[in-house]
Amino acid sequence: MENYIITISREFASMGRTIASRMSEMLGIEYYDRDIVEKVSREMGLPVPQISEEEEKASSYFSRSFPLGNSTTELQDQIFAVQQGVIGRLAEQESCIIVGRCADYILAGHKRILNVHIYTSHENKYQNCINYLHLDPRDAKRLIKTVDRAREAYHIRYAGYFPDDPAHNDLLVDSSALGVDGTAALLAEMAKLKFGL
Amino acid sequence: MENYIITISREFASMGRTIASRMSEMLGIEYYDRDIVEKVSREMGLPVPQISEEEEKASSYFSRSFPLGNSTTELQDQIFAVQQGVIGRLAEQESCIIVGRCADYILAGHKRILNVHIYTSHENKYQNCINYLHLDPRDAKRLIKTVDRAREAYHIRYAGYFPDDPAHNDLLVDSSALGVDGTAALLAEMAKLKFGL
Repeated sequence: MENYIITISREFASMGRTIASRMSEMLGIEYYDRDIVEKVSREMGLPVPQISEEEEKASSYFSRSFPLGNSTTELQDQIFAVQQGVIGRLAEQESCIIVGRCADYILAGHKRILNVHIYTSHENKYQNCINYLHLDPRDAKRLIKTVDRAREAYHIRYAGYFPDDPAHNDLLVDSSALGVDGTAALLAEMAKLKFGL
Repeated sequence: MENYIITISREFASMGRTIASRMSEMLGIEYYDRDIVEKVSREMGLPVPQISEEEEKASSYFSRSFPLGNSTTELQDQIFAVQQGVIGRLAEQESCIIVGRCADYILAGHKRILNVHIYTSHENKYQNCINYLHLDPRDAKRLIKTVDRAREAYHIRYAGYFPDDPAHNDLLVDSSALGVDGTAALLAEMAKLKFGL
C-alpha cells in the first residue's frame, strides 16, 4: 500500500503544530516541521540560522516587490528547491504529517494525500499565546500581526495561492471548536476514513 | 442538557443536503431544509411558491443595488423575519440540523452550535449534477453558475458575510475528500466530540 501524507498549514498560535504532534501519536506516524530545515541545512552545508534567515527574507512582502539583488533571491530559491527534494523523499519513504513549508503544493498530485488548514480567531490566538506559548502580551500581539503575513507571503511566492485557499485544502478547521485533542482526534478520523486505515 | 444545533451552508451540487440527511440518521435528530419554507408559508398565509419567488428576488445581486420598490423589499424582509422566528423556535424545541437559510447567523450566540460549510470543486459539482442530481449538462452548467451566486447574495444581504467565511464557521470541508457517507461520518464525529454525545 502506498504511503499516505497529511499536510497541515496553520495560522500562528492556532496550535497547529501541537495538533500535528498529537495526530502523530494517534496514527503512529512521524510529523515533520523544523526537522525539514535541519535536513536542508545538512544537504546544503549551510547553518540552520542562515536557512531560517533566508526563508524569512523570502517571506517578506518586500522581497517580492523589491528583490534584494539576484544572489539573495537565488539562494532563497535554491533553499526552496532543496526543501522540495527533502519533502518529496520523506513522502516516498514513509507515511507522515508535514507541517507548513508549502508541502501541500510540493506534493500536489500525490495519490494518498490529505491537505488541512488550521485557523482560529484573533482572540483565541492571543489566549493561546499567553496560556500555552507563554509569550508576554506585547510579543503575542506583534507575532500575531506578523507571522501569518510572512507565512502567507511565502506560500504565495512559491505555491501561488494562499495557504487557506479552500480549493487547495480538503478541510479547514477552527481549532477552538474542539481544542487540541479534539481537533487531532477529528483529523486522525478523517485520515482513517480517507485512507481506509 | 440544552439542545445542540448543527448549521450547514453548502455550495450547489456539493451534496450538502444529502450529507445533512445521512448525519440526521447517524445522530438520530431531524434536519430541516425546505420544510422551513413550508412553516413560513403557513405562518404568513402565503403560498410556498410565492415565498420561494420572493426569496429568489432577495438573492439577486440587483435587488440590493436596485430594489424593486419598497413593498417588494419589505415583503422579502418580512419573510426573513418570520423565518428567523421559525428557526429560533426549532432550535429551542429540539436538537437538529438546519441547512442553509442563514441559520448560522440567526442562531449566532447559541450555546451549543456547530457551523459547517460544505464545498467542492467546479468539476466535482458538474459530476454530481450529472451522476446524482440527474440534470442534463446544459442545466448543470447554468445552475452551477447561478445558484451559488444567489445563495451568496442572500447570505450577504441578511447575515452581512459570505457563507464560506472561516470566521463564521467551525469547519469547511470539500465533500469530494470523503464522499457523502464519509463526510457525514466525519461531521457526526465532530458533533459527538463538540457536544459530548
